[in-house]
Amino acid sequence: MPPPPRGPGDDAALSEGRLLTADALCEGVHFERSEPAFLIGRKALAVNLSDVAAMGGRPTACLLTLALPQNLPESFFEAFADGFASAAAEEGVEWIGGDIVRSAAGMAISVTLVGVPGAKLLSRSGARPGDGLYVSGPLGASAGGRALLTRGWRVRPPNRRAMSQWHRTGDVRAGRRLEPLLAAPRRGSSKSGRGFPRPAAAVLIARHLDPGARLAEAAFLAGGGVASAAMDLSDGLGLDLARLCEASGTGALVLREALPVSREARLWAARAGEDPFDLAAGGGEDYELLFTVPPSREPRLRGWPAGRGTGPFLIGRIRPRAEGLRVVDAAGRTSKMRLLGYDAFRLTGR
Amino acid sequence: MPPPPRGPGDDAALSEGRLLTADALCEGVHFERSEPAFLIGRKALAVNLSDVAAMGGRPTACLLTLALPQNLPESFFEAFADGFASAAAEEGVEWIGGDIVRSAAGMAISVTLVGVPGAKLLSRSGARPGDGLYVSGPLGASAGGRALLTRGWRVRPPNRRAMSQWHRTGDVRAGRRLEPLLAAPRRGSSKSGRGFPRPAAAVLIARHLDPGARLAEAAFLAGGGVASAAMDLSDGLGLDLARLCEASGTGALVLREALPVSREARLWAARAGEDPFDLAAGGGEDYELLFTVPPSREPRLRGWPAGRGTGPFLIGRIRPRAEGLRVVDAAGRTSKMRLLGYDAFRLTGR
Repeated sequence: MPPPPRGPGDDAALSEGRLLTADALCEGVHFERSEPAFLIGRKALAVNLSDVAAMGGRPTACLLTLALPQNLPESFFEAFADGFASAAAEEGVEWIGGDIVRSAAGMAISVTLVGVPGAKLLSRSGARPGDGLYVSGPLGASAGGRALLTRGWRVRPPNRRAMSQWHRTGDVRAGRRLEPLLAAPRRGSSKSGRGFPRPAAAVLIARHLDPGARLAEAAFLAGGGVASAAMDLSDGLGLDLARLCEASGTGALVLREALPVSREARLWAARAGEDPFDLAAGGGEDYELLFTVPPSREPRLRGWPAGRGTGPFLIGRIRPRAEGLRVVDAAGRTSKMRLLGYDAFRLTGR
Repeated sequence: MPPPPRGPGDDAALSEGRLLTADALCEGVHFERSEPAFLIGRKALAVNLSDVAAMGGRPTACLLTLALPQNLPESFFEAFADGFASAAAEEGVEWIGGDIVRSAAGMAISVTLVGVPGAKLLSRSGARPGDGLYVSGPLGASAGGRALLTRGWRVRPPNRRAMSQWHRTGDVRAGRRLEPLLAAPRRGSSKSGRGFPRPAAAVLIARHLDPGARLAEAAFLAGGGVASAAMDLSDGLGLDLARLCEASGTGALVLREALPVSREARLWAARAGEDPFDLAAGGGEDYELLFTVPPSREPRLRGWPAGRGTGPFLIGRIRPRAEGLRVVDAAGRTSKMRLLGYDAFRLTGR
């Protein structure tokens, strides 16, 4: 039997004093060639940074392997590499090597990130009944941005100057930077994304294409011994919370109204006729942290780093395993939590 | 400008006391789905083992990312994972993690290998004029095997029992093990591989599909402080020697008749109407070591580990840079060495 494709249920594996993680992205599945190559490069690193962050580690070095189709313009590769390098420089990660090969079909990207563990290692398995359940920031924006991109919105590549000044920032400022590059679906297009407000579209799409990673927040949670368990939200709260509870041997109760959903994501949910809770719990690719804190340590969250976001947000409590995963709404009605999200390993979705 | 896709000209990068290397393989470019998945898995690890060996390191842990098309049978993935795991176990490498995602097109594999540097690090840049130029074993067999596979020869997947007992061995024994699995091109097929002797085909194809890595030999060269420079032969002697000389700031003289070419590879060269020297110097994917030894240390090569091969073979001498790369034949005629082989980075070939 082959071993599992990850370490024992955590976001990165620990081997001889180093944290190691690897993630792959494929054209047509995780990104489209119509997206700016520069931002694909940034995201390729970010999803790995997020894995090391989730363990409370400090990322130090990375390797990149690329499989490139022969028809891919060299300018696409160069912008991709610039984006990857800019994200690495931003977080002090050294790009030390990799491999470039020819692909017979689409473009495939694989990134390996090496990190140094923090004073305390965060894992998925430390949650205990009674612990507060938190997310580091609002959810659902990335899913909204992805929906808009599949519904006719396009982003023109940033120019050289814009690329050289690009850096990770808050969602609203990132939206303002992206807005001039946005092309709305054409008049007369049947695409259902038409008519959605441009500034909100920019915020959502910026979040989808350039999610960054919560490194400062993770370092705070690990360094201060604050969190009892942590992971990053890549596949959607529904699936990821189930994994955390499975690893910890617990259940959980989520407060439906407490789930943070940004103004722009709510706007998209209304437009798409979707419940904002479902968007936030099932959309995936948020790359926020999901973590738990024992009641005695919850006051320490006042020291939360003043960063780009507005978190942390208390969204529920860890409960005994027998209670399973449940959601309680404003009227006090309790229901079973649906396992929304996509499971990349089972190949059922993205 | 993006940094180079490898460390400074070496096979693996050194970062905070660890050797790191990553290589990618793509369906339709580096392997075909008609090849046994078990052996693709073994080769995917071997090409990385070879990179760490070339630096004189001891491989310790690996990560695997896979992009799998939805139409890929689960049995293919399982046999691939079994092969990968068998190669890892054989060399004491721990498979600690990775990622599996869906691919919209062909299968793509990326492997990252972590190693611990030996007492002395081998690099490409230490060769000096006068040093002996060596290869660890015969060249050209892998290129012969690749040619046969493109000319109608097929390999049936080994059964479960054969897989569980598979291990890296010498070329001739590996050929005997592979022979029962071989299917020759059909009678009446126009494929030019028809009629080639079956036992020789088995040796060449086994070498192409399961090259292994020269870890014991590399450890000897690094540990004993024997070699002044080393690298692994992945793209063909012509190109790789040019890289070693470029890194060392030297030229080289290769003795045409000294190049080791196995009996089976000579047989294929004769059949294909190819010069055995061109097959050996330009075929690529040998995964033997190319290394240099200062004259004062050449006697130490008597301690060469009694392994699977018959090397080392002296194939020439390092010369001053001004002399360039030259080949001298049995009649004493000297010519410029052609840069045979393929350059994966430039995407000009495989």
